[in-house]
Amino acid sequence: MNEHISPLQIAIEKIQDYLEQDQRAQAVESFLQLAPGDQVEIFNLLNEEQSAIILDLLDIDATADLFDRLRDSDTLEAAENLSLEDLADVLEEMQPDEAADLLGDLPPEQASQALDEMEDSGDVLPLLAYSDESAGGRMTTEFIAMLKETSVEEGLTLLRKISPDHEVPYYVFVIDQEKKLSGVLGLRELVIANPKTKIKDIMDPDVTRVGSQMDQEDVAQVMTRHSLSAIPVVDEQDHMLGVITHDDILDVISEEATEDMYRLAAVASSELEPDSPVRQHIRGRLPWLFLNTLTALFAAWIISNYESIIAQVAALAVFQSVVAGLGGNASSQTVAVIVRSIALGRTSPKKIWDVLGRELVVGIFQGFAVGAIVAVGVWLWRGNPFLGIVVGIAILANLVVAGLVGALIPLTLKAFGRDPALASSVLVTAVTDSVGFLIFLSLAAYFLPHL
Amino acid sequence: MNEHISPLQIAIEKIQDYLEQDQRAQAVESFLQLAPGDQVEIFNLLNEEQSAIILDLLDIDATADLFDRLRDSDTLEAAENLSLEDLADVLEEMQPDEAADLLGDLPPEQASQALDEMEDSGDVLPLLAYSDESAGGRMTTEFIAMLKETSVEEGLTLLRKISPDHEVPYYVFVIDQEKKLSGVLGLRELVIANPKTKIKDIMDPDVTRVGSQMDQEDVAQVMTRHSLSAIPVVDEQDHMLGVITHDDILDVISEEATEDMYRLAAVASSELEPDSPVRQHIRGRLPWLFLNTLTALFAAWIISNYESIIAQVAALAVFQSVVAGLGGNASSQTVAVIVRSIALGRTSPKKIWDVLGRELVVGIFQGFAVGAIVAVGVWLWRGNPFLGIVVGIAILANLVVAGLVGALIPLTLKAFGRDPALASSVLVTAVTDSVGFLIFLSLAAYFLPHL
Repeated sequence: MNEHISPLQIAIEKIQDYLEQDQRAQAVESFLQLAPGDQVEIFNLLNEEQSAIILDLLDIDATADLFDRLRDSDTLEAAENLSLEDLADVLEEMQPDEAADLLGDLPPEQASQALDEMEDSGDVLPLLAYSDESAGGRMTTEFIAMLKETSVEEGLTLLRKISPDHEVPYYVFVIDQEKKLSGVLGLRELVIANPKTKIKDIMDPDVTRVGSQMDQEDVAQVMTRHSLSAIPVVDEQDHMLGVITHDDILDVISEEATEDMYRLAAVASSELEPDSPVRQHIRGRLPWLFLNTLTALFAAWIISNYESIIAQVAALAVFQSVVAGLGGNASSQTVAVIVRSIALGRTSPKKIWDVLGRELVVGIFQGFAVGAIVAVGVWLWRGNPFLGIVVGIAILANLVVAGLVGALIPLTLKAFGRDPALASSVLVTAVTDSVGFLIFLSLAAYFLPHL
Repeated sequence: MNEHISPLQIAIEKIQDYLEQDQRAQAVESFLQLAPGDQVEIFNLLNEEQSAIILDLLDIDATADLFDRLRDSDTLEAAENLSLEDLADVLEEMQPDEAADLLGDLPPEQASQALDEMEDSGDVLPLLAYSDESAGGRMTTEFIAMLKETSVEEGLTLLRKISPDHEVPYYVFVIDQEKKLSGVLGLRELVIANPKTKIKDIMDPDVTRVGSQMDQEDVAQVMTRHSLSAIPVVDEQDHMLGVITHDDILDVISEEATEDMYRLAAVASSELEPDSPVRQHIRGRLPWLFLNTLTALFAAWIISNYESIIAQVAALAVFQSVVAGLGGNASSQTVAVIVRSIALGRTSPKKIWDVLGRELVVGIFQGFAVGAIVAVGVWLWRGNPFLGIVVGIAILANLVVAGLVGALIPLTLKAFGRDPALASSVLVTAVTDSVGFLIFLSLAAYFLPHL
């Protein structure tokens, strides 16, 4: 293992040493000296008992900072150890969007008690209406807005007044009297403009915006396409509601990729990690294995219809898996390309005929290439050209089916508004296995006298 | 298909109409009215002939803007249609990091001719030394740096002087006389500070930075962890070399996720899309299918050693694929979780024993659950308890192997500095197929008298 020791590794060992010697104050002091991003990493690497000690000793502000940055499931777990009063205080100090996420994840009763206990829940309440994965659920309500008629000078004065520990994006949003979004201004434009100018004269009136109901994945696409570090969220009447910033969108892109990758591999929980508790592994994986059991038994039933010919030519049992396996592999390739391209907005169900046409050509070409090689190989190995031909033709046919099914299932799911990544390996290989066995064994039955 | 028509769709239809009627000027005019991000989308959706017409009519600046935003492979393709003079002019107008990427992708001869033709290649030349996927290859050399001793007032004056069409991040980097990075300052802090203050007194001296050789995936992790919208890149002596901004990092995260997802599904080219040319599909997919052919024939060879017992009990051919298929599915789950967690920095080869221990427990539990159900099912279906027991035990054993192999291969690849995603479904299922057939058929040989 040629890995270097990272500074993080040293920091965590120091903190763990303190904790083992019960020097809790020193442990927390070392913890708080770290940058907030590093605190999160360390916190994740501590065991449950250790992280509970640290959490217990953090003050409200530090806890809120930590909660803002932990993944939602970890925040929830940590929050369950807090008293109701502490929880309410922490929620007030958290960024409103993160506080709303936490409230949404808490058991309803605890959430409503915490809301009652909060002195000022005005920032959070409006956010509770949005789903976690919508633009509204991702936005923060802390942003800088100025009226169109404001002068640059007034704007700068206003900016100086806003307390600098606010997490504010680097844009000033310009609104009209009705709070409708009318333009945007970079901080830099504000700084370099003539102080007497009105903001409406230097703002860019052409603001890319998203609706509060838009799915976070679509928001990520818009922000990426336009290289924005922040995007305003508006309601249906174009009133400015909040802002989504670049770090939220990094999380979205990363989470969505994990979700797709896991779904393709038939893992149901996108929060699963190698060191998640065993019960979470089981919850995330076993249901798909059960489904796979059903599809595998269906494929077995297809084979069972040909038992009498397998009893005559046992070599069929040797090659049936080659046909099915190649089909499964080819369809996984197609599914991965289609699912990823849909996620990145580079293909859609509208292109279904183009895509199927291309997969047909690719399937035929690859089927001929692989089928011919295997046919010759089987002929040479078993000394029977007919067996080679049966295997080769079955591979050709199954690779064509694999390409078409691998494209058709995710595109159809998308067309019906479902997640295309649900076309996981299990479902698509269920088809290619069954079709592969059927083609191969029925061809074998036809050529039986020669095998 | 319940999809709405997007404004982009309308825009592209309008432009295509103009092109079909040979109204080229109007087509380009409509094109240029779009936001740069939308231009890229439209350009990607046009066919080759149409995009060539548009490209031909764009001026140098517009071409450079477009090239900055296209994916590298598309930029390369478009650049090959330009004359050497135009190419050199476009390269000068492009962002230095993108220009360096393009020069690196061009055939060496054409690249050096273009460099010779450029009037000012000073920004680009130093970037050519870095690999595309390193921090140095991702950074831009356009950033705002000020000396420690500068006053806020001087800083603001300097800021006003810099032409506003530069793509500059929202940070001012503070350097000492030797150009070593000493601190960072948000534009907002500069705006709200007392004009007479020295920059060194308001800067944050604790700047997160990365070395120019750092891999882009690691840079993305650092920026995500610290929620940075820009990060400075330094050489070994801590001299400031450039800046990586949030939009570069969005691309990195997205590209790395695509690469991992494709590798897991045995697709070799991470630039493959559903509408890529057929030859690119073949190049990206066929090599893995050939490898899969070899591994499948190896598994077939294992089965062939048991042909005589399959000839006696053809039912074995029915169930061998159930055992192998479940193992393949379980190992794909494990590989996906391990590969993604390594990519997100949440696990590493150091944890190999923990991870293997957990996979062992999960494998045993899932093996018992699935094995028992299938054993009973096979017993009821075929009326032979021994056949059920053989299938059940083989599933249990193969699921345990699947979990261990699925964790071991990617962690080992990582420990040796290779990409863990190379542990694609092909390699891991090669093991689970072979082991599955071996366990099942050797158990069956042992229990043969009862089957």
